[in-house]
Amino acid sequence: MDVTIDNYEELLPEILEKIENCDFCSIDCELSGITQYKDLNSFDTLRTRYEKIKNSVESFLILQFGLCVFKYKPNEKSYESHAYNCYLFPRSQKCKYSKDYSFSCLNSSVEFLIEQNFDFNKVFKKGISFISKDCEENLRHKLHLTIEDRKIPKNTLYPPNKEDIRDQIDKILNEIDEFVENKLETRKEIKFTEFLLRLFIEKNIRQKYSKQLKYESKFLENKERLMIITKVDPKDITNEIDDFEKEIGFSKLIWFLSQSNKLIVGHNMISDIMQMLRQFFTANLPENFEDFKSMTNSLFPRLLDTKYMASQAPLKDLINNTTLADLERILSKEPFPKITIENDLYSTNNEKLHEAGYDAYLTGCCYAKMFHYLETFNSSKLALEEFYSNKLYLMKSYDNLIFDLKKVQEEPKRDNVFYVEFPPKWETQDLYDLFSSYGPIFIGWINERSAFVALQNNDNVKKVASQLLGVCGRDYRVYFYSTYINQLYKSKNEKNKNSNSTPDNKNSDNNLTNSNEKRKRNKEKQNDKSSGSDSSLERKKFKSDKNDEKQNDKPFEQSMDCVYNLFLKDNTNKR
Amino acid sequence: MDVTIDNYEELLPEILEKIENCDFCSIDCELSGITQYKDLNSFDTLRTRYEKIKNSVESFLILQFGLCVFKYKPNEKSYESHAYNCYLFPRSQKCKYSKDYSFSCLNSSVEFLIEQNFDFNKVFKKGISFISKDCEENLRHKLHLTIEDRKIPKNTLYPPNKEDIRDQIDKILNEIDEFVENKLETRKEIKFTEFLLRLFIEKNIRQKYSKQLKYESKFLENKERLMIITKVDPKDITNEIDDFEKEIGFSKLIWFLSQSNKLIVGHNMISDIMQMLRQFFTANLPENFEDFKSMTNSLFPRLLDTKYMASQAPLKDLINNTTLADLERILSKEPFPKITIENDLYSTNNEKLHEAGYDAYLTGCCYAKMFHYLETFNSSKLALEEFYSNKLYLMKSYDNLIFDLKKVQEEPKRDNVFYVEFPPKWETQDLYDLFSSYGPIFIGWINERSAFVALQNNDNVKKVASQLLGVCGRDYRVYFYSTYINQLYKSKNEKNKNSNSTPDNKNSDNNLTNSNEKRKRNKEKQNDKSSGSDSSLERKKFKSDKNDEKQNDKPFEQSMDCVYNLFLKDNTNKR
Repeated sequence: MDVTIDNYEELLPEILEKIENCDFCSIDCELSGITQYKDLNSFDTLRTRYEKIKNSVESFLILQFGLCVFKYKPNEKSYESHAYNCYLFPRSQKCKYSKDYSFSCLNSSVEFLIEQNFDFNKVFKKGISFISKDCEENLRHKLHLTIEDRKIPKNTLYPPNKEDIRDQIDKILNEIDEFVENKLETRKEIKFTEFLLRLFIEKNIRQKYSKQLKYESKFLENKERLMIITKVDPKDITNEIDDFEKEIGFSKLIWFLSQSNKLIVGHNMISDIMQMLRQFFTANLPENFEDFKSMTNSLFPRLLDTKYMASQAPLKDLINNTTLADLERILSKEPFPKITIENDLYSTNNEKLHEAGYDAYLTGCCYAKMFHYLETFNSSKLALEEFYSNKLYLMKSYDNLIFDLKKVQEEPKRDNVFYVEFPPKWETQDLYDLFSSYGPIFIGWINERSAFVALQNNDNVKKVASQLLGVCGRDYRVYFYSTYINQLYKSKNEKNKNSNSTPDNKNSDNNLTNSNEKRKRNKEKQNDKSSGSDSSLERKKFKSDKNDEKQNDKPFEQSMDCVYNLFLKDNTNKR
Repeated sequence: MDVTIDNYEELLPEILEKIENCDFCSIDCELSGITQYKDLNSFDTLRTRYEKIKNSVESFLILQFGLCVFKYKPNEKSYESHAYNCYLFPRSQKCKYSKDYSFSCLNSSVEFLIEQNFDFNKVFKKGISFISKDCEENLRHKLHLTIEDRKIPKNTLYPPNKEDIRDQIDKILNEIDEFVENKLETRKEIKFTEFLLRLFIEKNIRQKYSKQLKYESKFLENKERLMIITKVDPKDITNEIDDFEKEIGFSKLIWFLSQSNKLIVGHNMISDIMQMLRQFFTANLPENFEDFKSMTNSLFPRLLDTKYMASQAPLKDLINNTTLADLERILSKEPFPKITIENDLYSTNNEKLHEAGYDAYLTGCCYAKMFHYLETFNSSKLALEEFYSNKLYLMKSYDNLIFDLKKVQEEPKRDNVFYVEFPPKWETQDLYDLFSSYGPIFIGWINERSAFVALQNNDNVKKVASQLLGVCGRDYRVYFYSTYINQLYKSKNEKNKNSNSTPDNKNSDNNLTNSNEKRKRNKEKQNDKSSGSDSSLERKKFKSDKNDEKQNDKPFEQSMDCVYNLFLKDNTNKR
């Protein structure tokens, strides 16, 4: 169901009840922009990857949140499911407690969504408001202080050093008290010439009758001012606690989901989860990667990423494409079990890809099908969840396949990886030429002057070390990966010492970006039409997190091919 | 006419011709966000104000650009006008030279536009691309280098240290040369087992026939690879210069406008102009305010701001409200002359306020009416333009009414202004109490601990100086404005010395922001419904630059009233 400001309040109890009673939920977010595929490097360290995604989610916004709740019916061996396609927008109008909220859009993400008929007008017109938990707590505290403060009876206020108008103020205030008491009167007029008098009458009215009386002032011709006081209809007296609760909006649902302790399934969900943390819990994500993990664990203790699940043995041997739509198609055929999954809104035939509600529904379907397939091997439900959960898939990564939320992860050693510096005119082929004697390589561009090069064959590491390392008089320099990283952290630590900031700050490995700039340039140089369309195809693919190329879990030979495809060829049937 | 990617290329020649032949143009921009009224301080220095607007336009985007061209028909004493309502978006799809482009949206601006039925979907789907001049020049230079480079005949490329496959490469390349020469053949197949061979054949094809041949590779079962080479249909060979020209998109129109030397009229146009400079000319606006002025002078030598025109004597005595729609209504009545202004798209009855094309049309109408009225006083056209042009109106300013583009402007002395520090619990009334003996005051909040206070009556300055300055043992401190500013520049200069940056950097007067936070807080404390709606009304007003309250040019008494209205009252008929 489409959920907007028009029906959210009404639907909320039903949704919360459905979450309460479900077996698992699936989620999906449509964002105003995502971490650009080209900004990722296959050799990012885990921290660097965290920082890159963090920087990105801190400017973008969830525009549409898909939630699908699944309930298993054991007798019928089928699922009942309900999908909610929710529109979000940080409203300021009619929101007493809202703040200005600026958010970024990425052109390619916006174009991608609009191509899928995403309705931005509906988001902006009907999006449900939200608030982050830390902001809510702060405001709630202030609100309670204000309300408590108001209960203390106030003395009448008088202007300082103006004894002569004290009596006048008292007299008028008495009249106003009588007006308030008199249930027959609804309107009172008072005339002043003394400006200070008006000021202090108003001040006292606000202090004593802020919610009961309204007033307005008019200039009269004879320099007098007329104050018209009217009573506020009791049914119009808003309850500010109620107002405040309403402005919490969509966050209520998310907070409930967080506390439900239900299994939450997503597909390639790292960006979604980080965006949710930022939007609904804390405006500033933790600087430190380990802090992020423990925060996620405490807020969402049971997460499961279907892209990770599908790309691990034993399923990976049956699944050659883990993009969401393809995955669902593969799982609908043998050897996966036929499971009926009823839904009130969608069917898997009814292609509404990239509508958040639909993608959440598909994700849940994929999970159910994989789960029931694996269950046939006598795996217990608990063991399966234990094995797959809290591991968030990382795309475009050479060896860091996941964020493992429950474990402290060591960075891989990468003994077979070299860091290479060269003149800016170098292209992929030049790197290939340099390493031609050492077997297949995998290249991770850093910028136009440097790249990581991984050898497929570890036996050749020594050969490279003896033949390319420390070579003088050439226009390139080759280093061990470890040398490069040590140097990087050394200079980072020195910087931190100078700036007194934390060692885990966000400037680390800044240069591990824009790896694809070169790739793009290479393509542009080729200047044929097919490469142009290739590039747009590539871009399109990476617009949605759900559609990244499956690179990591391929055997090395295939990965190599993939690299060659990207770098060297213009068009192949395979893509 | 609505101008989108569907009709822009076709319409462009007509639009350029209309500009060429017009008497003047008017413009208006709808932005994804604007400098927040609350971020402005009435006592901003000119530089601070420039920096504030600059920071804002650097993140936001022109989504809709309105252009209206006016041609006077002296015989009929009427105008013919044509309006173009143009949708803009930084496209990346199908754009070979485009970059990722991230832009910000402000929630309140988006809500305001969507309330006016602004069609965001149309912007994102049909918006015309654009490019900044500096970016265009850079790309064009690179493109020409590439094209020139391609004309130089290239030697055949061979893998290093692999003499044995040189002959094979030569042989296959010869075959390909023959294939290219032979007009009857359109497809050629080549088989390899040697991976390096394929690589270098591809490399040579790209180098020699990049635009004429396409190729793709397939794995065969026997470990062979099949390369299929096909000829590109000559009519599909894209001309990259043409492609590039197309991607310049809307900037062509703006650059033409800039070079046309026509009078360009806008209403409260400072944000529009600065946004245009950034979007179509230079990604980074000058750091220095004077550099900004000279840049604007050279790109748009004849600008006229109708809000400034309407708020200056003699017109200001006839015009009590300078918001665009009100201004137009006022100018349609006596004593302003009746002028027929024909338009192909709009009429002044046909209210499409806040559609850029319509606002541009209204702005032009206002200019024409004011101009012909003033002309009746025997003013020459030249003298009138000389008097009014290149002065851009500044809203919410105590005394800096304009950016005067043709003059070096001195900052006002503000001898009657004091800088006051106090505890955060202070509210407007506390300031009023403090200054109660010195006549009416005008307050410009800086933050919750400080504000500027201007005395209406200069005679009281000495009194304040003797009674409030340097007072000890109180919870407030009062300083002359000049003392504050000197201190500020002193500490800024010290900072600059340390950081080695230019004296005119963007950190200046950073604390002169959020003046309205306090105001808002005051209102929240009052907590009545009417103040809530007041505040939303206030916000609505300030969402569009066109609608700021006319504050500066009122007599002091009225300004004071305006202040009191904002701070002390909850609802009046006057607003």
